[in-house]
Amino acid sequence: MHRFGIIGYGGMAGYHHSNSKNIEGFEYVAAYDIEPERLELAKKNGLIAYETLDDILADESIDTVLVATPNNFHHDLAIAAMRAGKNVICEKPVAMNAAELEEMIAVSEETGKLFTIHQNRRWDKDFRIVKNAYDNGLLGNPYTFESRVHGANEAIFGWRGFKVTGGGMLLDWGVHLIDQIMFMFGEEKVVEVYAQLMGITVEEVDDYCKVILRFESGKSATVEVGTTCFQKLPRWFVSGSKGTLVIEDWDCSGKILRSKKSEMRWEPIVIHTAAGPTRTMAPRPKETLEEMALPEEDPKWADYYRNVVAAIDGKEELIVKPAQALRVMKVIDAAFASAEGSGTVKVNI
Amino acid sequence: MHRFGIIGYGGMAGYHHSNSKNIEGFEYVAAYDIEPERLELAKKNGLIAYETLDDILADESIDTVLVATPNNFHHDLAIAAMRAGKNVICEKPVAMNAAELEEMIAVSEETGKLFTIHQNRRWDKDFRIVKNAYDNGLLGNPYTFESRVHGANEAIFGWRGFKVTGGGMLLDWGVHLIDQIMFMFGEEKVVEVYAQLMGITVEEVDDYCKVILRFESGKSATVEVGTTCFQKLPRWFVSGSKGTLVIEDWDCSGKILRSKKSEMRWEPIVIHTAAGPTRTMAPRPKETLEEMALPEEDPKWADYYRNVVAAIDGKEELIVKPAQALRVMKVIDAAFASAEGSGTVKVNI
Repeated sequence: MHRFGIIGYGGMAGYHHSNSKNIEGFEYVAAYDIEPERLELAKKNGLIAYETLDDILADESIDTVLVATPNNFHHDLAIAAMRAGKNVICEKPVAMNAAELEEMIAVSEETGKLFTIHQNRRWDKDFRIVKNAYDNGLLGNPYTFESRVHGANEAIFGWRGFKVTGGGMLLDWGVHLIDQIMFMFGEEKVVEVYAQLMGITVEEVDDYCKVILRFESGKSATVEVGTTCFQKLPRWFVSGSKGTLVIEDWDCSGKILRSKKSEMRWEPIVIHTAAGPTRTMAPRPKETLEEMALPEEDPKWADYYRNVVAAIDGKEELIVKPAQALRVMKVIDAAFASAEGSGTVKVNI
Repeated sequence: MHRFGIIGYGGMAGYHHSNSKNIEGFEYVAAYDIEPERLELAKKNGLIAYETLDDILADESIDTVLVATPNNFHHDLAIAAMRAGKNVICEKPVAMNAAELEEMIAVSEETGKLFTIHQNRRWDKDFRIVKNAYDNGLLGNPYTFESRVHGANEAIFGWRGFKVTGGGMLLDWGVHLIDQIMFMFGEEKVVEVYAQLMGITVEEVDDYCKVILRFESGKSATVEVGTTCFQKLPRWFVSGSKGTLVIEDWDCSGKILRSKKSEMRWEPIVIHTAAGPTRTMAPRPKETLEEMALPEEDPKWADYYRNVVAAIDGKEELIVKPAQALRVMKVIDAAFASAEGSGTVKVNI
């Protein structure tokens, strides 16, 4: 049984703690935080509460730590933990930028400690449905992927509202959505990054971001995160040469519509609609399309931890690899550069 | 009564002809086309059928001509017509590029003939609703405008499929959608153009285009046209600091949701949903939002012609001005350059 410690017992750490209780092979046993009331909560939740970083790192019964602090502390804490002999699970975004992550990876290689990032949204059901459709070619040759998370709360909370702590939606949600897309496409290189970052209700960071990636093969992926969107666009819109997939929301309602293979001829004619006269945009006869239910997927977030434990035990390859996170951070660096005035950034990531 | 002639009696010209019969002040009386069967149709429809360009331009009873040929012929035909003393209404896109249009405008100024472009979609109901919401500040400070036309026909018809004739969706539909946005924002300058053009079912031209404009004030506008989208995203998605407007389709169904001004406090908490633990994206209580019906608009395409006739008669200023079309063509030039590898094009249009 591996014993895990938590550095930074805030909202996400509490979630990790309560959510991982029934996963075999490890348990969270201790926490360290700079806030006394958080340590009190940790104690109440059955954890050993350490008052200093040195103390938790000195506990030799703990072989792995979760770093779940504000983003600007990930680099130093993860490095300190690995040097103290701990494996490290780091919350996302793993670092403030690619340069920091490169240093963290170097220490992981130097110490031989396992180092992974909590990109738990690779196990989100909506994403798995899209990945299934992609892997199985259900849409023909897919050319555009639009991945959106639209919230209406007109707010960013706590340290996520400040630049110094690595706040903003690109680093908070954007990193998940970009990681999903890049994970789905495997080794395919990103060649172009364009981004818009806006602060609608805050000054320092982006509470709205739009990032557009082009991949080697020409595929386009749009990632959009908004916190001031009082209505939503669908969570996913993916279109290919032979079909379009829509997932409306987190409930994973939606469907695939595909071009029907048949000998039936259909000749769009110029029609007069509210759209005006158009042949190109004439409605297509329903019988020339076939509806397909979204593929069944039932992923479990716990599988992230199961894989981490198996990797610590040398039984499985790590699923969330530092090298993958480095590609994502390089894309995010390019997105910041793009939004800060560089326009499209040509890359080979 | 002004007598109008038509150069190029194809699908759109036929539409112009039949659609303008009840508008006071002018009538279509003649047509010229290079295809004998089109001239036959023109005759059947009660028009004088001219077999040469010289013949129709020599008819002194005709004071205005509509140019409704493939796009590559607009420049030469419009110039010839103005030099022959005719006012010119040109189908969109008015030219293949801004340089051609500058020459056309120069001839209009030299000859004193009226010259306008058939940007009839400024009178589309869906657009007028958005413009109303924008003009009246219904969404607070709007920051993103997404204007989409998604069709499922997997095809581009006739000359619109070829580069030499100015085919592709950017020039066909994109020009309308860009014109709408720029018309709505008035004099505000475009400062950045990013575009992706793809050929999904054709080789030579774009049957899918995405163009993103940034304006001086930071506003972002996305224009997307697809012909291989088997499901659609909404026709309009517009979000501002205080509200979001969605128009689903040409039927103009949709609504505005706005942040309710009230003293009520609502504290989003981290919730566990299918979205995972999130405070930022926690659903907002319904009672903190107010729904507003889309503004009423009932524009008439005929008003385009009414304005042209009044402008010919010196009674009104032209609504669709060549200088506006020139700005749109410059944006389209920049979009082609962007898509062809220039990335983001910085402009001041």
